[in-house]
Amino acid sequence: MQVKSLRGKNFIAISDFTKEEIVTMLDAGFALKLENARGEHHHILQDKTIFMMFYNKSLRTRNSFETGIFQLGGHGIYLDTNAVYTPAVKGQEQAFATERLDDVAKVLSRYGEAICVRIFGDPVGWVYGAANNYMREFARAAEVPVINMEDDMYHPCQGMADLMTMQEKLGTLEGKKVVISWAYSPSRKKPISVPHSMMAVSSLFGAHVVLAHPEGFDLDPAQIANAKDNVARYGGSFTITHDMNEAFKDADVVYPKCWPSPKFFATAEKEADWKAQDELFDANKGWICDEKIMELTNRDSIYMHCLPCDRSFEVTDAVIDGPHSVVYDQAENRMHAQNGVMAVLMNG
Amino acid sequence: MQVKSLRGKNFIAISDFTKEEIVTMLDAGFALKLENARGEHHHILQDKTIFMMFYNKSLRTRNSFETGIFQLGGHGIYLDTNAVYTPAVKGQEQAFATERLDDVAKVLSRYGEAICVRIFGDPVGWVYGAANNYMREFARAAEVPVINMEDDMYHPCQGMADLMTMQEKLGTLEGKKVVISWAYSPSRKKPISVPHSMMAVSSLFGAHVVLAHPEGFDLDPAQIANAKDNVARYGGSFTITHDMNEAFKDADVVYPKCWPSPKFFATAEKEADWKAQDELFDANKGWICDEKIMELTNRDSIYMHCLPCDRSFEVTDAVIDGPHSVVYDQAENRMHAQNGVMAVLMNG
Amino acid sequence: MQVKSLRGKNFIAISDFTKEEIVTMLDAGFALKLENARGEHHHILQDKTIFMMFYNKSLRTRNSFETGIFQLGGHGIYLDTNAVYTPAVKGQEQAFATERLDDVAKVLSRYGEAICVRIFGDPVGWVYGAANNYMREFARAAEVPVINMEDDMYHPCQGMADLMTMQEKLGTLEGKKVVISWAYSPSRKKPISVPHSMMAVSSLFGAHVVLAHPEGFDLDPAQIANAKDNVARYGGSFTITHDMNEAFKDADVVYPKCWPSPKFFATAEKEADWKAQDELFDANKGWICDEKIMELTNRDSIYMHCLPCDRSFEVTDAVIDGPHSVVYDQAENRMHAQNGVMAVLMNG
Repeated sequence: MQVKSLRGKNFIAISDFTKEEIVTMLDAGFALKLENARGEHHHILQDKTIFMMFYNKSLRTRNSFETGIFQLGGHGIYLDTNAVYTPAVKGQEQAFATERLDDVAKVLSRYGEAICVRIFGDPVGWVYGAANNYMREFARAAEVPVINMEDDMYHPCQGMADLMTMQEKLGTLEGKKVVISWAYSPSRKKPISVPHSMMAVSSLFGAHVVLAHPEGFDLDPAQIANAKDNVARYGGSFTITHDMNEAFKDADVVYPKCWPSPKFFATAEKEADWKAQDELFDANKGWICDEKIMELTNRDSIYMHCLPCDRSFEVTDAVIDGPHSVVYDQAENRMHAQNGVMAVLMNG
Repeated sequence: MQVKSLRGKNFIAISDFTKEEIVTMLDAGFALKLENARGEHHHILQDKTIFMMFYNKSLRTRNSFETGIFQLGGHGIYLDTNAVYTPAVKGQEQAFATERLDDVAKVLSRYGEAICVRIFGDPVGWVYGAANNYMREFARAAEVPVINMEDDMYHPCQGMADLMTMQEKLGTLEGKKVVISWAYSPSRKKPISVPHSMMAVSSLFGAHVVLAHPEGFDLDPAQIANAKDNVARYGGSFTITHDMNEAFKDADVVYPKCWPSPKFFATAEKEADWKAQDELFDANKGWICDEKIMELTNRDSIYMHCLPCDRSFEVTDAVIDGPHSVVYDQAENRMHAQNGVMAVLMNG
Repeated sequence: MQVKSLRGKNFIAISDFTKEEIVTMLDAGFALKLENARGEHHHILQDKTIFMMFYNKSLRTRNSFETGIFQLGGHGIYLDTNAVYTPAVKGQEQAFATERLDDVAKVLSRYGEAICVRIFGDPVGWVYGAANNYMREFARAAEVPVINMEDDMYHPCQGMADLMTMQEKLGTLEGKKVVISWAYSPSRKKPISVPHSMMAVSSLFGAHVVLAHPEGFDLDPAQIANAKDNVARYGGSFTITHDMNEAFKDADVVYPKCWPSPKFFATAEKEADWKAQDELFDANKGWICDEKIMELTNRDSIYMHCLPCDRSFEVTDAVIDGPHSVVYDQAENRMHAQNGVMAVLMNG
């Protein structure tokens, strides 16, 4: 393949790229990780500035990006959208408080070399897809690459880190059972981006992907269709179950995580129905990843989580702090995987 | 001229400098812009730290400075005044919430190499000139250059970028008609610094400067006197009109922008009269820059705005996104012009 | 001594180190200060990222660290705990608002090379020692050095800067009278870390340390015991007085500063008693450092304060802006002293 064609591209969803392109960026991340381990400097982004625009809180994303950018010789600028004139799409502007998103994107394109954006939930009134629409609008208006630091549909940087972690731990995904499972949490206001991106990456390499959740917590049908397309093309399988035990049985990878049910989210026509959401949650408090259910998995299975996790709800301390857990390696891989993405999209 | 005399100076108002000094800083900005375009590195500020103290929001100013400083090899530190002990002049201090401005300025002078400050409006209770007084106090107390990132009277960095943009687009200002016009917006709480600084730069080079606004929106008489002095010395003319159409006729540059009427601002003796301000605004909703009025201007006229602009009020999308608009070039020039200023004031 | 044993250590309290180790870090700071004065670059922290986690406001600490880190070739990331998922110890977590402190510490350890933390007061409900417990928990969980940027018990970086300043001004502390005095302020919600750290450093070098405060403002008995141990081992003396005049008489160093009485603080069992605290404060408004009391000190005595100071309460302008005051040198030394600490703990 030719990598030059990747230069200048946006990085919004795993499914925007071919498998070969994903592998190229992943391999670049592995190479940079190894150089980093050997103490070699790689100032690929020298004198380049990258804007990190956050509508939402962040620990890992912000710090893995800002640290990674610095390692690559560049400078990351953390922007809290409340400290700038908050970028708003046409029709949602408010004089001297917001600024037309296009203007923000075009102006920042004149100063720096990429724009990273995180947006989901409250800033778009919990209308499913509205945050991804902001992301696409940034990409349309900007003259530099736009990198998705998580929206309401996708978290592709997390997907790349998850893929890197699975490859490191399992060697290959071929024939492995990879379980993406719902888990209970008292905190319901979350995007569903992480399971989507995990489905997108884990379905590319011949794994048996199992999606497990209580009824009512269906993921986006388009994302499921994409995962099914992938297994049809690249091997493996894709199944859905509503039985957590069945899912965990003989699993090589388990990724139990709380996500909400977008069917209760707001739409252009109606308000969000948080009460119905709560009832559905309360009915499924048993979906927790504890040592007992981990016994169903394979001996060398890995427990994954993007963090922050809601300890005692999604998972017990014994599991996340136990021998199956790879969560800190996974968090570290955020930085190396993103460095690979930036190196490929922004070099030259 | 000798440029060494500029080293260590503050940059608070265009009118603090001679025309020759302004040209020197502008030329330095042009040179750095060209080097930047050729991919040459110019680490003039290597190992130097610059503090950017913001009492107010910012997109362009913050990012153009932080990116520019990084390009010059330095490090810009963004300081939200709420995250430090807010600098307050003597008599306005509050124990453990504010800190005497002098102490802040003197301490930061011991760490870094310049202090940039943005302040206007709410932090000084909308008393006209009070923000500029803060700026002057910073300059008095600091032992390093203080750079004005906009106060209630001046926005000299915007002025430099505006000058750079006009020179790029028009070649020369000699004999050109430059119109600084008021425009309506529902947002009234703004400084009047931008028209002041635009008057200060456009009156230095032989242009015919026209100031247009409804009655009651007079700018500071001292700033007008300064512009008149300039045209008396350097050629061109300076006129005031209350007719937007007349102003736009045969214009080479139009800069329509909302500004408030400082006569309704608070003073040491009285509160601000926002109600009277609102009535005056409401009576002048017709002051909008649309395609129709742009037809009165010269064929190659340029439309300028410092951004953020209040689209649909100050200007229609058709104009700001149309062929006359140079607003993104103008925004980019913030960075190059400021780099020129910093390079001259802070080298060596 | 061997300095290699200091690599990777945490820097939480002066009393965690031997006198020889403190001197080593101090000397490293002096050497870096001199190199800095000569314009020599010392990129000891090249490509290293340091996280600065602030639960509280900061001017000097944040800017001295961020500037110093940049001078050393590294990158400091300012983290407001409200912009991340606020790190919370087990039992004080709140889903999707906080994150288990261990996870934060472990994840950041995977990206950067040190974690600096400031925490006291409101974030831990004013329970004395609770903030230091957070600091120790960070150190326990992190895999990189944790540096104390001030907790409720210790401010060791201030202590290092205070020591550097005294050595510069007095040559030697041997036989000198060093007065740590309480002073009145309307602001009572402060940590008692500064007098503790000042006691810890000034008692190591043969000085006559005098602690002066009204009855009821006793410092932590364990810190006093530590100071007494120091003078028993290294010479000098340690005395406590409740008479400000007696303390200031023939003093070589005076450090008058407001601190609260921890006996009114909250504990695990009871709420804070701010009313009783206020009454004790109100009864002692006479404890102010003015020119009259400074006349009791030695001719070349120095007036110290960590800043921000509550002017007109703790001290008059005439004193802090007068000939005895060394407060800006002291503030500058924060940076040089911290650079010494980081150079020793983080080199290699």
